[in-house]
Amino acid sequence: MLFIHCDYFFYSATKPTKVAEKISEECKSCAVKDVLVVFITVEKIDEKNYEEVAFRGVKEIVEMFNRLGVKGLVLFPFVHLSEEAGKPEIARKIIEEMYNQLKNLNYTVYKAPFGWEKIFSLTSKGHPLAESLRIIRLSKS
Amino acid sequence: MLFIHCDYFFYSATKPTKVAEKISEECKSCAVKDVLVVFITVEKIDEKNYEEVAFRGVKEIVEMFNRLGVKGLVLFPFVHLSEEAGKPEIARKIIEEMYNQLKNLNYTVYKAPFGWEKIFSLTSKGHPLAESLRIIRLSKS
Repeated sequence: MLFIHCDYFFYSATKPTKVAEKISEECKSCAVKDVLVVFITVEKIDEKNYEEVAFRGVKEIVEMFNRLGVKGLVLFPFVHLSEEAGKPEIARKIIEEMYNQLKNLNYTVYKAPFGWEKIFSLTSKGHPLAESLRIIRLSKS
Repeated sequence: MLFIHCDYFFYSATKPTKVAEKISEECKSCAVKDVLVVFITVEKIDEKNYEEVAFRGVKEIVEMFNRLGVKGLVLFPFVHLSEEAGKPEIARKIIEEMYNQLKNLNYTVYKAPFGWEKIFSLTSKGHPLAESLRIIRLSKS
């Protein structure tokens, strides 16, 4: 996961790919201010225990959210942070699960559509904690 | 290296860190249209042969540049693509070397200041090739 604390973030889903989820018209684009954007790549290794990955992902996000004191969250499926990307159906499941957990915890959270080509636009905050990487490593047991 | 084909890219260096390079006032910020932005993380393993890394990095950039038919390039030092980031002085050397090689090849290339806190703003093109990851793996010999 690549975290970017943004002054402004916008996305617009332009075209579905083969693995696109069905979305309603109002979910196709979104513009938000002062958010933590989480670019998420699910890797092959994460398929072994997607529940643990989702749970620990949420934990990391919540920690950073509290540290930064931002207003909202955007989960942005992004396959380009690893050369070992996992199966799209598992990736979608994990991101969906993270989204649901964050919603249940009452965070203001948006989820960019999975499997769509997307234009995005961002302005980073630029402070020392504005960008960071978090890799979830599954426990061996 | 994370490649993002941007409609628009802007950066502004706001504050030097301990490893900041000296820069003139006019290099502190830059706004460009239709560019390939290359977010670069140099890893520990790259320190073994920085010349090969720089050379192969340039090769990858040129290939993508030609494929996309963009107008310019931005090299953006970005330490957040790996948990195994290398020494700042080597990272700076590699990025500097890549910049010089690209300039010598007559590409329109900008280099964001190394070791500065930076605000950046981008709008991605959003087509299937607009984002991609390239990892340079050193040959074992």
